[in-house]
Amino acid sequence: MRGAVLYGKGDVRFEEREAPRITQPTDAIVRTSATCVCGSDLWGYRGIAPIAQPTPFGHEYCGIVEEVGRDVTSIKPGQFVVGSFFASDNTCPHCQNGYQSACQHRELVGGAQAPRLRVPLADGTLVATPDVPSDDLIPSLLAASDVLGTGWFAADAAGVKPGKTVVVVGDGAVGLLAILSAKQMGAERIVAMSRHDVRQKLARDFGATDVVAERGDEGVARIKELTNGIGADSVLECVGTETSLMQAIKSVRAGGYVSYVGVPHGVTLKAQELFATHVRLHGGPAPVRRYLPHLIDLIWSRKIDPGKVFDLVLPLAQVAEGYRAMDERRAIKTLLRP
Amino acid sequence: MRGAVLYGKGDVRFEEREAPRITQPTDAIVRTSATCVCGSDLWGYRGIAPIAQPTPFGHEYCGIVEEVGRDVTSIKPGQFVVGSFFASDNTCPHCQNGYQSACQHRELVGGAQAPRLRVPLADGTLVATPDVPSDDLIPSLLAASDVLGTGWFAADAAGVKPGKTVVVVGDGAVGLLAILSAKQMGAERIVAMSRHDVRQKLARDFGATDVVAERGDEGVARIKELTNGIGADSVLECVGTETSLMQAIKSVRAGGYVSYVGVPHGVTLKAQELFATHVRLHGGPAPVRRYLPHLIDLIWSRKIDPGKVFDLVLPLAQVAEGYRAMDERRAIKTLLRP
Repeated sequence: MRGAVLYGKGDVRFEEREAPRITQPTDAIVRTSATCVCGSDLWGYRGIAPIAQPTPFGHEYCGIVEEVGRDVTSIKPGQFVVGSFFASDNTCPHCQNGYQSACQHRELVGGAQAPRLRVPLADGTLVATPDVPSDDLIPSLLAASDVLGTGWFAADAAGVKPGKTVVVVGDGAVGLLAILSAKQMGAERIVAMSRHDVRQKLARDFGATDVVAERGDEGVARIKELTNGIGADSVLECVGTETSLMQAIKSVRAGGYVSYVGVPHGVTLKAQELFATHVRLHGGPAPVRRYLPHLIDLIWSRKIDPGKVFDLVLPLAQVAEGYRAMDERRAIKTLLRP
Repeated sequence: MRGAVLYGKGDVRFEEREAPRITQPTDAIVRTSATCVCGSDLWGYRGIAPIAQPTPFGHEYCGIVEEVGRDVTSIKPGQFVVGSFFASDNTCPHCQNGYQSACQHRELVGGAQAPRLRVPLADGTLVATPDVPSDDLIPSLLAASDVLGTGWFAADAAGVKPGKTVVVVGDGAVGLLAILSAKQMGAERIVAMSRHDVRQKLARDFGATDVVAERGDEGVARIKELTNGIGADSVLECVGTETSLMQAIKSVRAGGYVSYVGVPHGVTLKAQELFATHVRLHGGPAPVRRYLPHLIDLIWSRKIDPGKVFDLVLPLAQVAEGYRAMDERRAIKTLLRP
C-alpha cells in the first residue's frame, strides 16, 4: 500500500507503507473514500513542530469499513463511516460529559493519507451514515471528520445563540466552517476577519454578514466600531497564534466568550488582562465525536455544504503538491482521492 | 470627620479627613452603619501594590442615606442601602448584560472606612433594604457589599448547579462565602481547600462536605482521588496567586469551569496548558450589583448568614488593629463600627 510519509521540513513523500491490520479486538480497518491535508499538518511540514522520524501523516478520513476486530459490535463491514482524529471509547466519564477528545482511553488516529487506515476503539469512534453516500456528499462528510467538527466546537464553546454578534478570527477551513456553524446556531451578525477575496466570498456564502480586513489592534478597533464600543458576544479564534488570541480577547464584550480551537504555539496570557476583560475562555482539541451524528444529519439532508472548503482535489499520489498548495496559501484545503 | 487613611506599608491611620459632599447630581451621601477591611486592602497594606500618596481606604459599606443629588430619583434619604465597590449606572449595555463592574460609567468607591461616604451614580449603585434592618442583620448586609457578592460570582461564573462537585481554593472570607454560594446553588459535593481549624469549621458550617489540607500538586492529587481521577466540575479560585490558579486549573475535569475572583498579581498562563485541559475560564471584578437584590432577599429572610465571616468587631477608631489582625491571619475579616 502506498501512502503519505512526512520526512521533515517541506518533504512529504508518497511511498510504500505497511498495510494496516487489526491489532486490537476493538479496531476497525477503513478503506478511505477520501482524505485531506489539515492546517495542523503544516506545523510539521513547515518545521515549526519538528518530527523525530519519517511519520505516516493525516488524521481526517471517511470511507467503507472493511474489517472489524472481534469485540466490535455496532460497526459492521460495508458501512460508510466518519470518525474523528481522536479515537475514544465514548463511554468513560469524559466522553459522557461530551469531551471525547479527553477520553480516558483516547488514541490519536494517524496515517490517514492512505488508501487504508486502522481506527482504534471503532464502536466509540466511528459513526455510520444511513447508507453509502452519493459521491457528491463525500467532501462534506470528510469535512465533518475534523474541520467542520472543530468549527462547530468553536461556535458551541463560544456560546453562540440566536440573535448574537459573532466574530471569527482566521479564514482557514476551520474559521470558514466556524462561520457556517454560527449561522446554523442562529447568530444574527457574523463578522469574518479576512483579507483574501476568495475566502471572503466563501465566508459570505457560509453566512458572514460583515467582513473586516484589518488585523491586530486595528481589527479590534473595527469590531468595537461595529458594536457601538461594546465588543462582540462571541469571538471564535481559529488560528492559534498570540496575535490572534489577543485580538480575540480584546474584541469581546465584558462577560462574552472567546473560544480557541487551533493548538496555541508558545502563547502566554497575562491573567490580569483576562481578569480585566471579564472574558469567558474555552478551547482545546475539539470533541468532534460529540457533534458527528448531528453534523452527518445536516449533511445528509443537504442543509449544509461544508465540502465547499475543498478548493483543490488531487489524486492521493500528488499529496506533496497538496501540501505545497496549502503552505503557499494557493488552496484553502486539499482533498485527496486514494 | 475621622476615617482611615493608608500611608504606606503597615501604616494605616485613623485621622481627620474632609467630610464627603455631593459633587455630582447623581451622588448620594451614606452614613455608614458598618464597614470592614478587605483582603484586597492588604495588597496595599503589605506594600505589594504600593500606593503613591496617603489614601482614604475601604470600599465595603452599608448604611443610611443622608442626602441625594438632584438627579437621584429612586434612592431616598432615610433608606438603608447596600452598594458595591464599583459604582455603575445599571443601564448601559455592559450593565444590561449583567457586568455592572464593567459599566461604561463605572467609578471605584473609595474611603468607605469612615462614618460618611459619597457614592456616585446612586440610583444605579445602591439597593435599598425593605426597611431599616435590625442590628443583627448588619454584618450580613455588609458582607453582601463585596465578599458575599464576589463569592456568589465565583460560584455563578463556575457554572455551579445542582448535583455538581465543586472545589473552593482559598479559605479567606471570599472563599468561605463561595462555599455558602455553591451550597445555595445546589452543589452536591463541596470541597474546601483549607488547613486552618477555625476556617475549616466555618467552611463546614457554610456547606462544605469535604476538607482538603494539601496544596499545590498534592492538593490536585487529592481532588483527583476524590473524583475517581476525573476532576471537579467547578473550581472556584479565591486567592489570586499563580500557585492557586494553576492548582485550580489542574483540579478541574475536561470541559469543567474555573472561576477566579481575586485580582491576579503577576500571573501568566500558558495557552497550550489551558488548551490541553479543556478548561472553561471566567473571572474578573465581581459584578456584585447584579446579585444584590437576590442576596438581600436571602439575608432578609434569614436563609443565609454570611455575616459569620466577621470574627473580629472593632470600633472604627481601632482600624489599624483591624488591618494587623487580618495581615497576621488572627482574624478572617474585621468589621468596623463607626
